[in-house]
Amino acid sequence: MLEKDKFDYVREHVRTVPDFPKKGIMFLDITTATKDAKAMEYMIEFLYKKFKNENVNYIAGVESRGFIFGAALAYKLNAGFIPIRKPNKLPAETIKESYSLEYGTDTIEMHADALKPGDRVIVIDDLLATGGTAVAACKLVKRVGAEVVASAFIIELDPLKGREKIEAEGIKVISMLNYDID
Amino acid sequence: MLEKDKFDYVREHVRTVPDFPKKGIMFLDITTATKDAKAMEYMIEFLYKKFKNENVNYIAGVESRGFIFGAALAYKLNAGFIPIRKPNKLPAETIKESYSLEYGTDTIEMHADALKPGDRVIVIDDLLATGGTAVAACKLVKRVGAEVVASAFIIELDPLKGREKIEAEGIKVISMLNYDID
Repeated sequence: MLEKDKFDYVREHVRTVPDFPKKGIMFLDITTATKDAKAMEYMIEFLYKKFKNENVNYIAGVESRGFIFGAALAYKLNAGFIPIRKPNKLPAETIKESYSLEYGTDTIEMHADALKPGDRVIVIDDLLATGGTAVAACKLVKRVGAEVVASAFIIELDPLKGREKIEAEGIKVISMLNYDID
Repeated sequence: MLEKDKFDYVREHVRTVPDFPKKGIMFLDITTATKDAKAMEYMIEFLYKKFKNENVNYIAGVESRGFIFGAALAYKLNAGFIPIRKPNKLPAETIKESYSLEYGTDTIEMHADALKPGDRVIVIDDLLATGGTAVAACKLVKRVGAEVVASAFIIELDPLKGREKIEAEGIKVISMLNYDID
């Protein structure tokens, strides 16, 4: 199958759900893609090909859907998997980063001893919207002296310009499917 | 490496953190195992070998750590991955199951159209304690007519007898590492 056809296949398996989590939002539901074994394979294969020659030590997955792609990619790349979580979920000592939401702020955490200087890390989540979470996750990785090889996503919502925000931190952005919706 | 040595290797990479999430609880931290590429490989390999000849169509992972093992296993088994989530996280129509906690109840959800009659499913989570969540997750799978091939875990806390609760539902339990703590 051609590369382009695999991308189309995955895109056809992403479902749009209107009015979630609130009225007027068109939610892209990736669970209909992960439940299709072929689509799952194409998504992980896409990420694997991007990073197989990058000497990646760790995949840091952002809670919760980032765990799905991060863990499968870590296994395939023979790398370790590190969870970046919402507050008070990780048991040992953590470092934290807060970021702005439309109303208020949110915080994510990583174990303080999860990474060390020199580690080469991919930060992964399912979807890139405004980029706030991804930038905070990359900052956590950089704060302990590790290197962010890339911030990777399956879906990128182009109009929200999250890519610009991440690239402004000097970090490469990789995404599989671009959508012209916000 | 011998099978037994692989088990020991994973066990050595599970960290115990005292007083989490509250005073007096000894928490088994599996993130130190997932971050070790070899331990990650051995855990997924263990699960893969158990199920490779079972004609499994889907892995249902329980939020959030169940996503880590479930997604990597789904990829390896060439099966689909289905998330079982805390309330109000899944965008489309869901079915719900509630279960008792020490104080109060909790609820988990699955997309109503995630599975269909005849599907062969593994329900996976990182750790088996009292079994309440696992039984609720298995009930969700069975309610839509799918078959639970097994309820699988990396860690089982023997004294809490979660295995008995799951087996009482006629469901097979698979775990990699048994611990004599509660």
